[in-house]
Amino acid sequence: MGESFPMTGGDGPHSYTKNSSLQRAAAASAKSMLTSGILENLVVEHSSKMFAVADLGCSTGPNTFIAMDNMIEAVTQKCEIKGYCSLPEFQVYFNDHVSNDFNILFANLPPDRKYFAFGVPGSFHGGLFPKASLNIIYSAFALHWLSRAPQELGDVNSPACNKGRIYYSNAPHEVGQAYSLQFAKDMESFLAARAEELAPGGLMIILMPGRPDGTLPSQNSLGPFIKPLESCLTDMVDEEIIRNHEIDSFNMPLYSPSMEELRKLIEKNGCFGIARLETLPPMSVPLPSVEACRSGFESILRKHFRSEIIEQLFERYPAKIAGKPPIKASDGFTIGLFVILKRNI
Amino acid sequence: MGESFPMTGGDGPHSYTKNSSLQRAAAASAKSMLTSGILENLVVEHSSKMFAVADLGCSTGPNTFIAMDNMIEAVTQKCEIKGYCSLPEFQVYFNDHVSNDFNILFANLPPDRKYFAFGVPGSFHGGLFPKASLNIIYSAFALHWLSRAPQELGDVNSPACNKGRIYYSNAPHEVGQAYSLQFAKDMESFLAARAEELAPGGLMIILMPGRPDGTLPSQNSLGPFIKPLESCLTDMVDEEIIRNHEIDSFNMPLYSPSMEELRKLIEKNGCFGIARLETLPPMSVPLPSVEACRSGFESILRKHFRSEIIEQLFERYPAKIAGKPPIKASDGFTIGLFVILKRNI
Repeated sequence: MGESFPMTGGDGPHSYTKNSSLQRAAAASAKSMLTSGILENLVVEHSSKMFAVADLGCSTGPNTFIAMDNMIEAVTQKCEIKGYCSLPEFQVYFNDHVSNDFNILFANLPPDRKYFAFGVPGSFHGGLFPKASLNIIYSAFALHWLSRAPQELGDVNSPACNKGRIYYSNAPHEVGQAYSLQFAKDMESFLAARAEELAPGGLMIILMPGRPDGTLPSQNSLGPFIKPLESCLTDMVDEEIIRNHEIDSFNMPLYSPSMEELRKLIEKNGCFGIARLETLPPMSVPLPSVEACRSGFESILRKHFRSEIIEQLFERYPAKIAGKPPIKASDGFTIGLFVILKRNI
Repeated sequence: MGESFPMTGGDGPHSYTKNSSLQRAAAASAKSMLTSGILENLVVEHSSKMFAVADLGCSTGPNTFIAMDNMIEAVTQKCEIKGYCSLPEFQVYFNDHVSNDFNILFANLPPDRKYFAFGVPGSFHGGLFPKASLNIIYSAFALHWLSRAPQELGDVNSPACNKGRIYYSNAPHEVGQAYSLQFAKDMESFLAARAEELAPGGLMIILMPGRPDGTLPSQNSLGPFIKPLESCLTDMVDEEIIRNHEIDSFNMPLYSPSMEELRKLIEKNGCFGIARLETLPPMSVPLPSVEACRSGFESILRKHFRSEIIEQLFERYPAKIAGKPPIKASDGFTIGLFVILKRNI
């Protein structure tokens, strides 16, 4: 089932809870697309007594709570437009890896929520729910996490060997290709599982980082975001604090597909029709602060590198981002993709 | 909504996970009653595609996993007896207070489970699920926890003032009465919420400590179980380590109803018919070890007393139980109650 790299839990300074404003801003910019997408495409029956929404890869909040409120608001609006005199009872299923900090997620649940709240531990690359049990499946900034980094990246005999780097930006074409293949496998297992779980008339809504059509993987990626971290690690290799083989065998399991690539994978799977496949409004974003970097990557770094280098690594980090301007798509950064899928009958 | 006193989380020596063998033994002795109760009373339709079970007050496992397996085995047996060619997909909802350690619960989920697993944070004295969404509601050794200790126990002007004690065994009749009234209120809110949630044909199965009919609250209670702890606390009052008002205002929010009392509350609520109301086979149980005592009561003690007395308290505890024989109903300990309820239509 691949590996699990949770966002940092708790509510301390390095927690995802305190360091997810970028994801929040991107989701906020998608709100009107989400609302109109639901109003246009969702089929909701007069007789529906329950309405189940799942957030796959929800982390610890608060972003997921904002998204779920937006979703329920849009479904409510749809029911009102249809003239239904009563609303269904909403159920929200919050999913993430078993190692996600569900205790913090639950402690942060909005007390005035208009839904029954459930936690669902497990990888979304496998089945998580009974057949046809979900009316909306939502996933925001989670599908770019691969189930694992492609194994050939660490194989010195492979043309996809990613020596001295931790990512595919600035890497030979074969490295990006290996990432792309792993994404295709993960997306297929994701779509196959969701096709079982989505109820008739329901929607799957995906927000994720991607790249413009006609670009190579290395041209627009999360690379600019990861570069300061990579640079700290390579400095530590030069200073012989980290051994060569340690960095050679470490690769960030993140990938940003092009719209075309995503479209082909959805068509190949064959269970879903594409109702929308659009880009989010362009954003310029600051390089991640040391807190944000720890929130996203400390768990995966600790798993691979010796614990004793972690504090040193993050001590070096602030100098790498000091004074650097925000990044945007023209710097080789990702663009935001917005997808709405319907189940083919 | 009352207060929340979770069992001690984690998987350390004082955790509920490592100190719940008594509850496990009691539930094991109820297994055949549970199986026959399900076979006789559950209505399961050929057309049912999903089957939802909830465990209310599940704590962190492993007891809940054993109980859920037993339950699913019995429902499967029922489907086979009925000659159904396919089984429904099972969903298990694990409920406990928001402060329960759901991270440990999720980490301990059996990998070979035959159900989709969900966590449900919140008090079972309120609504937790949509209408008619559960086929079996199970609760084992959780309903004896009151939502709060009755407030008059701490009121020096009340005849129910429980000065110098932390429980109602050996207390004036009025103290037991105050506990009984609080239990009646809690049971009513519990039953009202469950009446909404139970699906037609479904069952509610309750295991809880109680007492024989015709006895007063103080005659059979969890008192013998709590006495060594109370004795440590009163020693510490005598030694002026704990102030009088600290112990006077602390009362364990636990109550064991008689079968008659429980029957009347269920009848007064009016939403359920009693399919079974029986006693579990008598057990003789050892006094709780210091680890077991911490697992159940450390959280509530820490909430009331100053942190600095907690370690001292538990250091004194082993001497209080050393050499003491196991306790049984004839020592004034509770008996186990087993209840199966059906929704009145």
